[in-house]
Amino acid sequence: MEGRGIGYPVAQLAHVEIYTPKPEETLWFFTELLGMEKLEQRGQSVYLRAYEDYYTYSLKVTERAAPGLGHVAWRTASKEALDECARQLEGTPYGLGWSDGDMGEGPAYRVRTPDGHVMELVWELEYYQAPDGQKSLLRSRPQRRPLRGIPVRRIDHVNLMCKEVGPNKQFFMDHLGFRLREAKIGHGGVEVGAWLSVSPLVHEVACMRDSKGRGNRLHHIAYWYGYPQHIFDVADACPDYGIRIETGPGKHGTTQAYFMYVFEPGGNRVELFGDTGYLIFDPDWKTVVWDVANESDLERSSIWFGGRLPESFYTYGTPDDEAAAPERRQAS
Amino acid sequence: MEGRGIGYPVAQLAHVEIYTPKPEETLWFFTELLGMEKLEQRGQSVYLRAYEDYYTYSLKVTERAAPGLGHVAWRTASKEALDECARQLEGTPYGLGWSDGDMGEGPAYRVRTPDGHVMELVWELEYYQAPDGQKSLLRSRPQRRPLRGIPVRRIDHVNLMCKEVGPNKQFFMDHLGFRLREAKIGHGGVEVGAWLSVSPLVHEVACMRDSKGRGNRLHHIAYWYGYPQHIFDVADACPDYGIRIETGPGKHGTTQAYFMYVFEPGGNRVELFGDTGYLIFDPDWKTVVWDVANESDLERSSIWFGGRLPESFYTYGTPDDEAAAPERRQAS
Amino acid sequence: MEGRGIGYPVAQLAHVEIYTPKPEETLWFFTELLGMEKLEQRGQSVYLRAYEDYYTYSLKVTERAAPGLGHVAWRTASKEALDECARQLEGTPYGLGWSDGDMGEGPAYRVRTPDGHVMELVWELEYYQAPDGQKSLLRSRPQRRPLRGIPVRRIDHVNLMCKEVGPNKQFFMDHLGFRLREAKIGHGGVEVGAWLSVSPLVHEVACMRDSKGRGNRLHHIAYWYGYPQHIFDVADACPDYGIRIETGPGKHGTTQAYFMYVFEPGGNRVELFGDTGYLIFDPDWKTVVWDVANESDLERSSIWFGGRLPESFYTYGTPDDEAAAPERRQAS
Amino acid sequence: MEGRGIGYPVAQLAHVEIYTPKPEETLWFFTELLGMEKLEQRGQSVYLRAYEDYYTYSLKVTERAAPGLGHVAWRTASKEALDECARQLEGTPYGLGWSDGDMGEGPAYRVRTPDGHVMELVWELEYYQAPDGQKSLLRSRPQRRPLRGIPVRRIDHVNLMCKEVGPNKQFFMDHLGFRLREAKIGHGGVEVGAWLSVSPLVHEVACMRDSKGRGNRLHHIAYWYGYPQHIFDVADACPDYGIRIETGPGKHGTTQAYFMYVFEPGGNRVELFGDTGYLIFDPDWKTVVWDVANESDLERSSIWFGGRLPESFYTYGTPDDEAAAPERRQAS
Repeated sequence: MEGRGIGYPVAQLAHVEIYTPKPEETLWFFTELLGMEKLEQRGQSVYLRAYEDYYTYSLKVTERAAPGLGHVAWRTASKEALDECARQLEGTPYGLGWSDGDMGEGPAYRVRTPDGHVMELVWELEYYQAPDGQKSLLRSRPQRRPLRGIPVRRIDHVNLMCKEVGPNKQFFMDHLGFRLREAKIGHGGVEVGAWLSVSPLVHEVACMRDSKGRGNRLHHIAYWYGYPQHIFDVADACPDYGIRIETGPGKHGTTQAYFMYVFEPGGNRVELFGDTGYLIFDPDWKTVVWDVANESDLERSSIWFGGRLPESFYTYGTPDDEAAAPERRQAS
Repeated sequence: MEGRGIGYPVAQLAHVEIYTPKPEETLWFFTELLGMEKLEQRGQSVYLRAYEDYYTYSLKVTERAAPGLGHVAWRTASKEALDECARQLEGTPYGLGWSDGDMGEGPAYRVRTPDGHVMELVWELEYYQAPDGQKSLLRSRPQRRPLRGIPVRRIDHVNLMCKEVGPNKQFFMDHLGFRLREAKIGHGGVEVGAWLSVSPLVHEVACMRDSKGRGNRLHHIAYWYGYPQHIFDVADACPDYGIRIETGPGKHGTTQAYFMYVFEPGGNRVELFGDTGYLIFDPDWKTVVWDVANESDLERSSIWFGGRLPESFYTYGTPDDEAAAPERRQAS
Repeated sequence: MEGRGIGYPVAQLAHVEIYTPKPEETLWFFTELLGMEKLEQRGQSVYLRAYEDYYTYSLKVTERAAPGLGHVAWRTASKEALDECARQLEGTPYGLGWSDGDMGEGPAYRVRTPDGHVMELVWELEYYQAPDGQKSLLRSRPQRRPLRGIPVRRIDHVNLMCKEVGPNKQFFMDHLGFRLREAKIGHGGVEVGAWLSVSPLVHEVACMRDSKGRGNRLHHIAYWYGYPQHIFDVADACPDYGIRIETGPGKHGTTQAYFMYVFEPGGNRVELFGDTGYLIFDPDWKTVVWDVANESDLERSSIWFGGRLPESFYTYGTPDDEAAAPERRQAS
Repeated sequence: MEGRGIGYPVAQLAHVEIYTPKPEETLWFFTELLGMEKLEQRGQSVYLRAYEDYYTYSLKVTERAAPGLGHVAWRTASKEALDECARQLEGTPYGLGWSDGDMGEGPAYRVRTPDGHVMELVWELEYYQAPDGQKSLLRSRPQRRPLRGIPVRRIDHVNLMCKEVGPNKQFFMDHLGFRLREAKIGHGGVEVGAWLSVSPLVHEVACMRDSKGRGNRLHHIAYWYGYPQHIFDVADACPDYGIRIETGPGKHGTTQAYFMYVFEPGGNRVELFGDTGYLIFDPDWKTVVWDVANESDLERSSIWFGGRLPESFYTYGTPDDEAAAPERRQAS
């Protein structure tokens, strides 16, 4: 591939499926605190959307004994791109074959990353049609802003904890056309983090080293606000609603975005993104490399100013042996 | 009185009563859009509070054929100050006598301004006690932040439309100890606006000239956010929820505060205050005078930057012959 | 072209050249108020950069008798894409031939839009190297944030006033691979505005109908902040520094971005963008169409909430017969 | 004293004098980073003002071998209040007698707190008159907003490190009419912090326990922005300009304000206040008490959400044995 002139097989992040042992409380978190809409329940799963998601949903929450990642769905750049990706991956150790597709989507081809995370590639996705009384006069907005919680606008990215960053980063680059936007290199040149994207966003997916060496775990999913005040609003509400803040609000060095990390009641880490950080329009971008063996670089890359990330950020992922989230106090 | 060394008989704005011909829709506006809590209904009135109001309530909404102002309640600086005020006003054309007090308050002395607006002076006020499950871990916060609408924090001020500004401004100064913080003088030196306060806020009450010459009308009541983003959040929601924005968001020259004016469905104008503007700590403050016969001063004093106020701002008050608010579209 | 799978010949907006009859004051505006850096002077031109521009500069200001647009430079997606574009346009009425390239760039191919605006296509661009003492510890930032004015972060887009929107819109789509993201249709179905982009931004270029029927004029160039407060900071400073605000701050319906329009002392309109609005990741985006023959759509598309654009917004472009900017009062 | 009905001898914080061993770098910090104006130099002292300070200056920076507090100047509520205070304190262990007054002020009476901090009481203060070209069209603003650094608006408060909180808190209450707004009680009921004010601000002065047991030290002085974004702007700039952030940005439980703590190059801690937090209008306010022997209360009172204060916050004050601030890297 030479520059955006050729384009990417993958166009965007479509939705993510997470597991939770506490479906009711997890649902409370996403609908009442983050203002998402519950669309419907199918078996052990509920489908949720943010008010600026254009497709039917961006989050599928499935009940399981332990929290973690179900799968990540990517929309390809075209029908042809989907078929081509499937053709290339079929018969490799990564290809898992076609599925009929989930709610609101057409045929999907499933793959497994070297680390084991399940990715889904899909072209056909239903656009959300807001019911009467919930439409917006703002023609680019799929539904009006809800008056519930501090409503997130759209899904932003997913961060995968991997045994080794290298092969997984390479998988996204070689097979799905992602570009390496930022990278963290630790002692002995070992890769500890990779931020990859197929758009000017710094990342739609990140691969992060699992300090516990387990791999195939979820570090976090992220939803986007676009206005910094809203992560401070969520932060203000969390202590009073029994939601544990891991760290933030703050500003990342990687991505430059305002962030906050919390744990939804099921135990999964959720990041809230306050702005877009910086955008990469350069078709010939040189990866930004942080040498985190260097103390200052480690701090700056994680939190550009004011503080450092807690140990849990490097060791906790889902599933995990410890529970991250406290019992949630009665919410009204 | 010489400076704050002597103090004010009135300490703060306690609550306001407004009338509405559409109680249900007005209630929707304050609870669902502005996130206020409905406490209880008594006859034709409902009592509402913002989550950082310390006393039981700050707004009483009473059903009437036409919108407008019921009364404004002020807490005095002490029991003695209340009695002294009553003693001084009894027997004047302003004194209306003692009442037993409304919900959550002790004995109140009522007065009528020269223009006819009814003020209530009270010392005993019940503090709000949040029910279990709604308390906050933040010890200075009377209840946790609601997860409904874009919640206002506390009542801020009231603006009265008067036939003549002069005598009403003087009434607040002479009998209630208010200071004149800012003033607008128009052609021929006629007073068109007065901003008065008993605290470092630029105003808890303003008197504004009624261009229609009617007087004894409500121009607006104001609630406070403290964070500018929240008035933009409300502004973003209004078009989709059938609430008419008169003007803003913008920044006032008088008070320096970020503002927005909307009409609640009953027709009363409501201002949302995004920040505190500037505060007056000077015990010997010289009134800031704007000569609005001067075009530039007129614009700057109303909107410090970007635009000017619509004609309706100078002519519309409640009650009025025209309705200000459109029918509200179905809200969910 | 079918979806982003094929990619665009043009990758991004690189820089813009504007003309000014008041070079010194225009320079003051961009360096002292907007915090841009002056790089060097060459003949009648000065080269300026925002602190997050990755290439050497994003603005070239050239002295001329009248304000207006010099040219707009676009970086192609690759060397091959540049050659292919040139090959396709050579010999058409649009092709103007190769130039040796300006400061900080390699060979450039120039074209003229149907309306006459001059575009430049270039692949080789020098990356900015901050001098010692101005580098940032933030590795994705080309230089540290200046402590001067309210510093803009990067160039965002350009808006061209055209005799007719249709053919110019089509030129950007057919020859440069732009997508039509939003459109405004007026009475009789005439196109009055088109927002086009080659990235998830809603536009890097817009074509707007010239109500005066002149065409080949500049409507505005836009710089980006990313944080809404900063346009309020600029708005706060403008009146005291003799800079005329045309309208805003406000929020657009098209793009959803927080905006403000001001006139730099030379007379050109400059837009300041407070956030990124919404981003388009959908590879199969359906153009958002506003029917501005419909009053409500006209207002909503221009200012989503609170107010409407002044007449000048539709009639004034540069060059123009009237001057837009007042004499600037002494700046310190 | 019974309620605000009687009023306070002290009306407001007028200015603070700090010592610095690095006058040039300290001056750079306040003028170039915080956008303050240098008025003049007198001997070893320079006088500085924020652009919304109404009196001539709010900060006096004096060269000394070690950083620390010179004195704190308070404006009284009236000439009579000043004389009365002096009369009451003369002949007590606290009274230090009259001085002719410093630049821009009339006769001042100096007192020493039980802990040894020097306070100055003054009535006559010169109002700032901006030179031509620096006046503002905003009539309540003493000078236009500077285009340098991220300009603070006004001085907010001072925090004193004391051997024992109790007697010093009592001194401010008994002799200067301060009210105790919030308090922190530690193990064994020992007072570890007191927030006192004479206005609706939660504090103009705080007394904090000196964990090193030294006492008579400066914990920090605070300047006010009023808009949260600006502390994030300063935070963003600090790492690139060699200014050490101790902690923040964050939100305090006590005061509810958005804060950030940095060290000016001379070693003194400076707090930047992003908003007004909550305001106390209640004439009969009950002190908010935090039991910081309780872990959760300790965290919440210091940082309402997201993180905890570093050890240095409790141990470092000026003068101190350790230096707080790193050598500042070349600025420009």
